Amino acid sequence: MEEASHEPSAEPEAVSIAGIRQAAARIGPHVHYTPVMTCRALDEMSGGREVFLKCELFQKTGSFKARGACNAVLLTPPECRDIVTHSSGNHAQALAWAASVKGVNAHIVMPHNSMAVKVAAVRDYGASITLCENTKSGRETTAAAVVSGHPLSTLIHPYNDPRVQCGQGTVGLELVQQVKEQTGGAGLDAVVVPVGGGGLITGVATAVKALCPGIRVIGAEPSKAADAFRSKQSGSLQGHDCEGMPDTIADGLRTTLGSTTWPVVRDSVDEIVTVSEEEIRLWMRVVYERMKLVIEPSAAVGVAALMSPRVRGMPQDVKRVGVVLCGGNVDVTLLQDLLAGDGNPLPV
Amino acid sequence: MEEASHEPSAEPEAVSIAGIRQAAARIGPHVHYTPVMTCRALDEMSGGREVFLKCELFQKTGSFKARGACNAVLLTPPECRDIVTHSSGNHAQALAWAASVKGVNAHIVMPHNSMAVKVAAVRDYGASITLCENTKSGRETTAAAVVSGHPLSTLIHPYNDPRVQCGQGTVGLELVQQVKEQTGGAGLDAVVVPVGGGGLITGVATAVKALCPGIRVIGAEPSKAADAFRSKQSGSLQGHDCEGMPDTIADGLRTTLGSTTWPVVRDSVDEIVTVSEEEIRLWMRVVYERMKLVIEPSAAVGVAALMSPRVRGMPQDVKRVGVVLCGGNVDVTLLQDLLAGDGNPLPV
Repeated sequence: MEEASHEPSAEPEAVSIAGIRQAAARIGPHVHYTPVMTCRALDEMSGGREVFLKCELFQKTGSFKARGACNAVLLTPPECRDIVTHSSGNHAQALAWAASVKGVNAHIVMPHNSMAVKVAAVRDYGASITLCENTKSGRETTAAAVVSGHPLSTLIHPYNDPRVQCGQGTVGLELVQQVKEQTGGAGLDAVVVPVGGGGLITGVATAVKALCPGIRVIGAEPSKAADAFRSKQSGSLQGHDCEGMPDTIADGLRTTLGSTTWPVVRDSVDEIVTVSEEEIRLWMRVVYERMKLVIEPSAAVGVAALMSPRVRGMPQDVKRVGVVLCGGNVDVTLLQDLLAGDGNPLPV
Repeated sequence: MEEASHEPSAEPEAVSIAGIRQAAARIGPHVHYTPVMTCRALDEMSGGREVFLKCELFQKTGSFKARGACNAVLLTPPECRDIVTHSSGNHAQALAWAASVKGVNAHIVMPHNSMAVKVAAVRDYGASITLCENTKSGRETTAAAVVSGHPLSTLIHPYNDPRVQCGQGTVGLELVQQVKEQTGGAGLDAVVVPVGGGGLITGVATAVKALCPGIRVIGAEPSKAADAFRSKQSGSLQGHDCEGMPDTIADGLRTTLGSTTWPVVRDSVDEIVTVSEEEIRLWMRVVYERMKLVIEPSAAVGVAALMSPRVRGMPQDVKRVGVVLCGGNVDVTLLQDLLAGDGNPLPV
């Protein structure tokens, strides 16, 4: 055993249940212990299972990303006064917020064509914004330049970082506990987790398999960005099968697995289920109509997977299924479109 | 003491803490124990108080009305197989649902110009619908005709009924308990409750004053439908000061106090605060933007009152304030309008 493992504030070298428990204690005072909600109508639509929705849309900054960002920022050494990342999405807001929790500076590199409302949200958390070309190299070069301009700065990757993964894993810790409480001890049989870069499912799978190895972990991906599905099928890490970024509506899931999330997806995730764009829109709307929850498309991917023939066909002894509603940051135009849709959303 | 008081299933003759506790036990298996949510941004906007939002938008049928309807329906005698009411709003859906819980028939009298989506929602719960003229006498005459056509039927008024009031009072029981748990025992100092016919505030005031007489109960009304405000000021029950129904956007609060809610408002409610239509729209939008909660205008009336100069001017020892977010049934067109509004909603 290494000496470092005696130090609870040490940076984790890889995601682990110990690191997740430490993250829970570290971020607990700052993040929301989000509610787990249920809905009889969704239970019926799922084919008679009991569905438990972990409402990360109500998390700080509107997504689970606040957890990982907070854990990572709080683990930076005291002399580090500048946090850097590149993101145009929920990680950008989360990191800007997390930096403000610690009282340090956030520098967010965002593509020059990011939506103005997202740039404004990041700025509202007090972050400095550097615009860059909307390419992988543009983002990385610009982020590297920002880092080199601030000698004691730290770059925090949105998912390929064990500090971040341990933070996201606290979703799994809470969900297992909450379902146990709500069912009088019966507990979860499966959990459905949306997969983009894999930070969330890496943390959640590590947590729930440690607490209860029998819980099935099901990843949910848009068919248009099914790199994790193809990676699992082939047994080796795959990129996207399209030029550039996939154009799925689920903007949080357009990225690919990373070098530290793929091994966990390979070894601890039971399967990956893919869903169509139509299903994502449908279930986003049904969840609003039936539960009054406005979820972002990436969260609807999890619900759509739950309702897919693949998951509906699972044995009936998979009785209690958790779904992580990963965020609620919806583009207003999209929401208006959905609300203007027809009045008969039910496919079952 | 009357013998009837030994019978826990007896119909209450007036709202009371005993009746509310019995209602909690009776409806507990059927309704949601709704979450209490907090938001740092709202705390700051309120002038530094701690705000606790009781999320009845997540209640069965989308509003607190499910509680009172369920309690009343479960208290009808076994031979009663037909429940009747007149309503075009949340009570209609709630009663239709509550009848289905008991397995009896619901007959809902709705004005012929009710919105089609609301009629469809009531029908979806399995109720029979009778359309009527959109006048007080039209509704009452038609409801009486429906009752006389079903010999063993019972009419359940939306608020002027102690069975209903006791059901709504369970909101207060839960809120007091939940805030105590979330604050490590410190507990509520005040609660803000929207006022229409007064069924909710009658139940909540009775509950919280019985549990903790020091909790201030503040009613919240649209200025356009301020009958409770004027009743409190004059010391006698007042109707509206306009012809017909007031045209406030808060459609759940257009009715006036009843003969059994006015005495409780007079004696147990500390004050009534009125808010403008503009404030209602503003806070509906802020609550969505900051908390991802889609609340109906009637619920926004409570938040607007919390943020009013009157409540902001209360002594700082009123530290922890509950607000009942009474429902989430929003007209889609209104929601689209609000989402299309400008990007700077903050008035403070």
